[in-house]
Amino acid sequence: MTRSQDDRPTLEDVAAFAGVSRSTASRALNGDANVSARAKDAVLAAARDLGYSPNQAARSLVTRRTGAVAVVLSEPEEVLLGDPYRTAVMRAGYRELASSGSQMVLMFNDGKEDHARTLRFLEGGHVDGALVFAPHRADPLPRALRLLRLPIVFGGPAGNVSRGVHVVDFDNADGARQAVTHLLGRGRRRIATVAGPQDQTAAVHRLSGWRETLTEAGLDPTGLSEEADFTLDGGRAAMDRLLAREPELDAVFVASDLMAAGAVRALHEAGRRVPEDVAVIGFDDNPSLATAMHPPLTTVHQDPAAQVQQMVATLLALLAGEPVPPRRHVLPVSLRLRESA
Amino acid sequence: MTRSQDDRPTLEDVAAFAGVSRSTASRALNGDANVSARAKDAVLAAARDLGYSPNQAARSLVTRRTGAVAVVLSEPEEVLLGDPYRTAVMRAGYRELASSGSQMVLMFNDGKEDHARTLRFLEGGHVDGALVFAPHRADPLPRALRLLRLPIVFGGPAGNVSRGVHVVDFDNADGARQAVTHLLGRGRRRIATVAGPQDQTAAVHRLSGWRETLTEAGLDPTGLSEEADFTLDGGRAAMDRLLAREPELDAVFVASDLMAAGAVRALHEAGRRVPEDVAVIGFDDNPSLATAMHPPLTTVHQDPAAQVQQMVATLLALLAGEPVPPRRHVLPVSLRLRESA
Repeated sequence: MTRSQDDRPTLEDVAAFAGVSRSTASRALNGDANVSARAKDAVLAAARDLGYSPNQAARSLVTRRTGAVAVVLSEPEEVLLGDPYRTAVMRAGYRELASSGSQMVLMFNDGKEDHARTLRFLEGGHVDGALVFAPHRADPLPRALRLLRLPIVFGGPAGNVSRGVHVVDFDNADGARQAVTHLLGRGRRRIATVAGPQDQTAAVHRLSGWRETLTEAGLDPTGLSEEADFTLDGGRAAMDRLLAREPELDAVFVASDLMAAGAVRALHEAGRRVPEDVAVIGFDDNPSLATAMHPPLTTVHQDPAAQVQQMVATLLALLAGEPVPPRRHVLPVSLRLRESA
Repeated sequence: MTRSQDDRPTLEDVAAFAGVSRSTASRALNGDANVSARAKDAVLAAARDLGYSPNQAARSLVTRRTGAVAVVLSEPEEVLLGDPYRTAVMRAGYRELASSGSQMVLMFNDGKEDHARTLRFLEGGHVDGALVFAPHRADPLPRALRLLRLPIVFGGPAGNVSRGVHVVDFDNADGARQAVTHLLGRGRRRIATVAGPQDQTAAVHRLSGWRETLTEAGLDPTGLSEEADFTLDGGRAAMDRLLAREPELDAVFVASDLMAAGAVRALHEAGRRVPEDVAVIGFDDNPSLATAMHPPLTTVHQDPAAQVQQMVATLLALLAGEPVPPRRHVLPVSLRLRESA
């Protein structure tokens, strides 16, 4: 039996042990339907007996590099291309992968039909690995991806999968905490929030960070939150609802810069001055949006380039066959003070 | 010898005639280095003798569909993701391909290093075909792509390649003509232009359409044009230069909406009213930009969805093995009247 240098079993070992060809072993492990039940059972038993783990798939890839890495954005396409934060992620992905000598192939995954196509392409040997952004908790893609023998690193939460996945995420709850603490320090007491969609874990953590910080300060968050959809119009409508219900509010923490732009517009239309009457803090620190707003937006800085950089580093380690245990890598965020709060 | 239904030679024919395997024939025709010189000569001779043509490569793809189509954007990435027209193209590409059951894989091609990677991926059998946007005349990519055995349709000019390629383009010169004719009809006589970068054919045609229409009307275009780089800041600076040199100008045709936004900003800063003092017409009719401007922008409407739709239709015909002669398909444009002119 051949053994790799570090004595862990290889795909060749599994094939030899099962008495099948390397390609049959690979197909069986990939769940390909074109493998007899008997061969499949033998391969899976051999993999189990030998302790062959999916993480090792990375090593075998080194020998069959396509030079391409997929960046999969699992969201409705109108969100993907309308949101400056997402385009910043695409740019960072492109730059990081290019500098590591890889070709980025960008894939949008918007709904059920895409799902099957995306999986088919990813398991087809067309890419060496994938960086996946799947922020929606109900998204079935991350769970399906775990079955592929392809190194994958998630940017942000992997749908509702929390174990056995490589994740590079931001500290969303702490970002909200920093924002609210700053507003409290400036004497604000009726601090509302425009939360992001609660089917996304990042939005859940930003909302809970806001709520907990208010509660710890002895303030009541009841009635001070409205949910929106991470769009400008959504932020504007949510701000209108907050103003109608809580006309005395003196600050608002908004869970994205784009929604903050909508909230500021709603405040101006309602005759409120920012920050004099209502202080506004966003989340993202998108360079083309936050600084262009009037007034320039105080916001929670998270760096898509740093996230993608860490994701690429993890992926390259997996591709090099390094033993990288699946874990959640959390990147810090910081408050960027401008004029809106 | 096997023959396809319409009696044209297949790859199998070439392989049999050359006395090599199908895969060796394919590699030889693809210029793969891992083929002996003797086999390569035999395959190329067989292909020549049988009249096997690259266009037919499309038919063979039907049997080895990956279900994926590449959309290649051969431009600097900061242009790609900062320009609303390019993101509109990506959205349209995604939608059209998804509705035809194909997975879009989006690739950016920014400079020399990408070039080799892009070619390697495209010729690696990872996609069934490609839609390519390569607007820069000096871009070597279109010429290199002609050697690949992959069905390709270009959106707009294929670099400086004008023959033997499938192109779906807009009538840029006519768009400029319509804009200038409208301005003349409103009594404007000092009609300047902010031209796009003249290393791009579309920009060349917009500039020549402006110049010819003025000349035909008996007006002198001398000193009334400034070139910029299709960015907002570029449009603003070009407008500043025009105003400094020709303070009496009463209209400007700007070769993109984004540059028009910059030009309007420059005009406002110079104390000119739009359209009272200076009428402004853009090009693109980007829905999120042209209607959001103050005043709303009169502009030349071109529809990225229609372009991509025609590109996908051509590609699908090629993939189905239909005999589609390479040609330049020109889509009409029309003036969309709003308030700026």
